[in-house]
Amino acid sequence: MASMATLFVNSPNPSYSFSKNSKPHFGSNLNFSFSVQIQNKKMKNHQKVRIFNGLIEPDGGKLVELFVKESQKDEKKKEALSIPRIKLSKIDLQWVHVLSEGWASPLNGFMRESEFLQTLHFNSLRLDDGSVVNMSVPIVLAIDDSQKQRIGESDKVALVDADDNPVAILNKIEIYKHNKEERIARTWGTTAPGLPYVDEAISNAGNWLIGGDLEVIEPIKYSDGLDRFRMSPAELREEFTKRNADAVFAFQLRNPVHNGHALLMTDTRRRLLDMGYKNPVLLLHPLGGYTKADDVPLSWRMRQHEKVLEDGVLDPETTVVSIFPSPMHYAGPTEVQWHAKARINAGANFYIVGRDPAGMGHPVEKRDLYDADHGKKVLSMAPGLERLNILPFKVAAYDKTQSKMAFFDPSRAQDFVFISGTKMRTLAKNRENPPDGFMCPGGWKVLVDYYDSLVPSENGRVAEAVPA
Amino acid sequence: MASMATLFVNSPNPSYSFSKNSKPHFGSNLNFSFSVQIQNKKMKNHQKVRIFNGLIEPDGGKLVELFVKESQKDEKKKEALSIPRIKLSKIDLQWVHVLSEGWASPLNGFMRESEFLQTLHFNSLRLDDGSVVNMSVPIVLAIDDSQKQRIGESDKVALVDADDNPVAILNKIEIYKHNKEERIARTWGTTAPGLPYVDEAISNAGNWLIGGDLEVIEPIKYSDGLDRFRMSPAELREEFTKRNADAVFAFQLRNPVHNGHALLMTDTRRRLLDMGYKNPVLLLHPLGGYTKADDVPLSWRMRQHEKVLEDGVLDPETTVVSIFPSPMHYAGPTEVQWHAKARINAGANFYIVGRDPAGMGHPVEKRDLYDADHGKKVLSMAPGLERLNILPFKVAAYDKTQSKMAFFDPSRAQDFVFISGTKMRTLAKNRENPPDGFMCPGGWKVLVDYYDSLVPSENGRVAEAVPA
Repeated sequence: MASMATLFVNSPNPSYSFSKNSKPHFGSNLNFSFSVQIQNKKMKNHQKVRIFNGLIEPDGGKLVELFVKESQKDEKKKEALSIPRIKLSKIDLQWVHVLSEGWASPLNGFMRESEFLQTLHFNSLRLDDGSVVNMSVPIVLAIDDSQKQRIGESDKVALVDADDNPVAILNKIEIYKHNKEERIARTWGTTAPGLPYVDEAISNAGNWLIGGDLEVIEPIKYSDGLDRFRMSPAELREEFTKRNADAVFAFQLRNPVHNGHALLMTDTRRRLLDMGYKNPVLLLHPLGGYTKADDVPLSWRMRQHEKVLEDGVLDPETTVVSIFPSPMHYAGPTEVQWHAKARINAGANFYIVGRDPAGMGHPVEKRDLYDADHGKKVLSMAPGLERLNILPFKVAAYDKTQSKMAFFDPSRAQDFVFISGTKMRTLAKNRENPPDGFMCPGGWKVLVDYYDSLVPSENGRVAEAVPA
Repeated sequence: MASMATLFVNSPNPSYSFSKNSKPHFGSNLNFSFSVQIQNKKMKNHQKVRIFNGLIEPDGGKLVELFVKESQKDEKKKEALSIPRIKLSKIDLQWVHVLSEGWASPLNGFMRESEFLQTLHFNSLRLDDGSVVNMSVPIVLAIDDSQKQRIGESDKVALVDADDNPVAILNKIEIYKHNKEERIARTWGTTAPGLPYVDEAISNAGNWLIGGDLEVIEPIKYSDGLDRFRMSPAELREEFTKRNADAVFAFQLRNPVHNGHALLMTDTRRRLLDMGYKNPVLLLHPLGGYTKADDVPLSWRMRQHEKVLEDGVLDPETTVVSIFPSPMHYAGPTEVQWHAKARINAGANFYIVGRDPAGMGHPVEKRDLYDADHGKKVLSMAPGLERLNILPFKVAAYDKTQSKMAFFDPSRAQDFVFISGTKMRTLAKNRENPPDGFMCPGGWKVLVDYYDSLVPSENGRVAEAVPA
């Protein structure tokens, strides 16, 4: 299996094509889709005994994958046709994806009420053996009154996609009240109108939640040319094992990579080497699920990451680029725990946490929704994450004296320029260039192209839904 | 030391006097205030080695009392005059009381930010040794901009009462932002206007919180005739030990006791005896701090409890009545954890939890703020409360066939009448009688007298601020 970074180093001038064509067309040894299939098959047969040497254990002791065995698929599809159905939204499907691959291990389906309540109140779940795993974001499926009525006394339901294809079966279901106000207040610490995930997935959702054990009939695919970059936790663990990683450090992102990020990642590897690790590997892990309207879409971000990697800013030998399938909550300190916990399940034992992770502007008041330091603080104290090493983000800024991104030195503050995400977007929208050394030219051009591709609004300016 | 129940059995016809006179005037062996002083002194000298045989351990392994040693009082008073001062509100003082006696052990003062964040996000605190204690309600002290400015670089402040008497010193202070919206949302699961504690203690409080190590110069007294019923956790533990209790079951209440409650408490003791305990003791523990406007005030409740006990409904030999000094949040599933945790510190290893504990009507919508079952469910899963045995409330109702309160039997539902708190209050306000057997006549008369004592509002009806 090859990572995106490896792909790039092996093909010096790849044209960007994977957004239109899901088959990679690099060398034969890079037939990613094929090798993943082989591995998946192998893994299914040995699921119970698979050991990831040296990697951090998944939460709950084993990675919980929820796929139906190949031999049972037909039977399960047939069964799905005979039981009540629930049509999944795009975000619901993303959660099925997340659950199916074990990112939320040891969860084995959409939350029942006891898991939902523990998540809201404790950001963690107590397992039968008394141990505690982190779980900060509700992974729930909402249904409305008429759906509830249609389910009636059935103890299972079929989950179907937009085209009515059966995706999964939810077994031993439990239906309980969806108190949206309480869910929102406890997850976001506000009930102000305008929270993107709330508007998208909660406000108009049904008044009931349905939990149960999930059996996924077919792995979730998006056919957007990026599926081969959506490595599951098991696949990532295989990759890290293959590379003999003795430390895996994860970098969650939902924005274009600039040289400040790259500096941080390179510096982290250096620090891990200093600590005595022989082969620390970076998991560069852009979030691939729902994001708010003014974030740069995944396909453009992947294109940008490609250019940055092509540019050699990060070492492909020690970098794995993959897509994290979770939707984004923008729930700050609550959500950063989910981001970290899911990466444990993928084998990461170090997690880089930035300033104001998963944060955004308050939707109503003129201030950040969360204190910029709370994410880091909450993460470092979170139940179930004691095993994870938290690496706080060092602040990088543009150093005018060196014409490059460097760690901020407060003793010569006047030499530094901070370029915020908003500033970066404004420059790209206006086709202006950032200072030399802020981002590689190829990566910057992708951003400019993205904003060019947007239809301008009436006043000639690109609409920006929510400041971030 | 004598409990209230013991006092009653020793004086068959006590006139109610303790609301006006803080000195009890029963037999000389019942000089409660005196005996407590002696014990307090003894306890201070042996604080580190005190062992409460057979009782549940306090959270964190020892009861954290925060009183200044007698020999240091003068020095501390002098010190308090030389450092910046913060004037405490009534509720602040109640929290100083709570902290000083160790109800919140192992907290040793108002929360610093790390404790505040853990409380909001995890309802628990991780201790240095890795163990976890429950802590669901922020115990914080708010200050405003001008107070913060006055504190300047001082690392300690004096806390003074309404008359400027120094009450305590807060050492090694930490000042951090008071994000009220987030605090309210995460504590109550709503930000709807009209939450009583929020209106009383948060909305108009300062934008900063100040945490630190508390040294309390004088035990908090209220001089309302009820101070002798405010037994500290240490005093309660001494009492339980003296009585050779091998199980202590706590009953938190903020309402008048009716015969349904009494039935439940009696039945609980019977169940504990069936379980093999030889001497289960009931801690009947009315909440004594801030309550909302339409709750029956503490002094009237204590008077009502007295009548109920006089009536012999509960066995004084196995009942300790004392006042829990905490203010009330009305924060449902979040707050019930605090109510339970504090009672562990007072020696209780069984906790009776009712329907919708610490709940109230939604301040804006026409529904209960919390699901009636969530309190019980959340409590049973709460981190740090694993040692506590949760006893769910059996539903009692008025059985018309027996003319008394009995456990509800769904097979003959038509025989039962449910008398809600609202219904009870309405009857008492209108000087009507409840069905025979609902409450002892003496207790009922106290309620009627209380409502008679209120000045009626203009339309001739007693104002009711918030339905409960």
